Amino acid sequence: MDLSSTRLAILGGTGPQGRGLAGRFAAAGLSVAVGSRDLRRAAEAAEQASGTALRLAAAVDDDDDVDGRGAGPVVGGSNVDVCDTADVVVLAVPWSAHAETLRDLGHVLRERVVVDCVNPLGFDDRGPYALAVDEGSAAEQAQALLPHARVVAAFHHVSSVLLLDPEVGSLDTDVLVLGDDRNAAETVIGLAGSVRGMRGIFGGRLRNAHQVEALSANLIAINRRYQAHAGLRITDV
Amino acid sequence: MDLSSTRLAILGGTGPQGRGLAGRFAAAGLSVAVGSRDLRRAAEAAEQASGTALRLAAAVDDDDDVDGRGAGPVVGGSNVDVCDTADVVVLAVPWSAHAETLRDLGHVLRERVVVDCVNPLGFDDRGPYALAVDEGSAAEQAQALLPHARVVAAFHHVSSVLLLDPEVGSLDTDVLVLGDDRNAAETVIGLAGSVRGMRGIFGGRLRNAHQVEALSANLIAINRRYQAHAGLRITDV
Repeated sequence: MDLSSTRLAILGGTGPQGRGLAGRFAAAGLSVAVGSRDLRRAAEAAEQASGTALRLAAAVDDDDDVDGRGAGPVVGGSNVDVCDTADVVVLAVPWSAHAETLRDLGHVLRERVVVDCVNPLGFDDRGPYALAVDEGSAAEQAQALLPHARVVAAFHHVSSVLLLDPEVGSLDTDVLVLGDDRNAAETVIGLAGSVRGMRGIFGGRLRNAHQVEALSANLIAINRRYQAHAGLRITDV
Repeated sequence: MDLSSTRLAILGGTGPQGRGLAGRFAAAGLSVAVGSRDLRRAAEAAEQASGTALRLAAAVDDDDDVDGRGAGPVVGGSNVDVCDTADVVVLAVPWSAHAETLRDLGHVLRERVVVDCVNPLGFDDRGPYALAVDEGSAAEQAQALLPHARVVAAFHHVSSVLLLDPEVGSLDTDVLVLGDDRNAAETVIGLAGSVRGMRGIFGGRLRNAHQVEALSANLIAINRRYQAHAGLRITDV
């Protein structure tokens, strides 16, 4: 899938997950715009992601077996501006800001492919647990709030620590991609596949997004027990 | 972990998941008892599982790199009898029989390690979906019905087709093992690790079992899309 002309926006791009994804997508040669309500922080996050992307892309160029094509540009902007010019919008905000962000931006997200990466989790003294969501999942809440957008759920389990580490050239993980719009899901499967080491796998309809989001609680438990940055691979595919 | 003296019972051992697990555990040298309400069907399932185990163990013996120790015995019996003499009881009944089975057998499951493999799923014309369970998950329902048992959730994602195929000598999959009783979870992690190719990974507390059970719906969606028998591997562990 040729994504070189795809314009990508990342909401919540100043957080670790958003910055990490921005750097990886830019390293794959994509044009990325990082959105924030704070323009200065958006610009800073874009600069950081751009630096990571350049280092990652340079490492690929040093690898004789791989045909690198250089890092794509990363710019910062307001949430409205980055959505307005994007084909695909990645939603990497905290769960606490999920509904409000989508209500505020509904008018600029019509017809867009909206990639929901949000994990509704709570934490107490026994560790992480899945929160109940009235709509079933963050992704289904997004689709309910954005009836004219093409919502896809993906990138829930990718460690931001690994994403942000320029020494980690390849990410050993599959990305479960869920959606009711087949073409939008295929676009996001291609997007995942553009990142070195990552593979996108179709993981079902949005009504089965809850357990994929909630599984992040189990991965956190695994990380704590094994001192790891756990990811998922699907075997026999 | 030495499990050679562990006595294992499998409830629902006449179904494909139960028979498949029985064959694999016996191939690993464990003593397995297959339980059913129908003694004739229990005996038939035990005989089938024993045949699979002998074939799998013989293939291991033919492999110079591996020290096989021969298959363990598989016997059939009533649900009450197999539980009564077991240290670890694997619950592989259909979800529709889950609560009733546990209510009937509560008196012989006290203090046992009970391994719940049950996935509460529904199916309609759009495919599989997770069912809501009042207690949160099948495993939490089991713990609520068996307050004196040590409930562990595991083996949700292992393909019965692969388990039952004696040509598949090694299963390329990790098993997420969840439980609030640390020692019981460790026993089941060892049990998973006794099967060739399988690895048990601690996946959190029982309150995080729902999403692990429900993820089976996503794996079924993956199997349909990719014509696969998908399993999970956890990376960086």
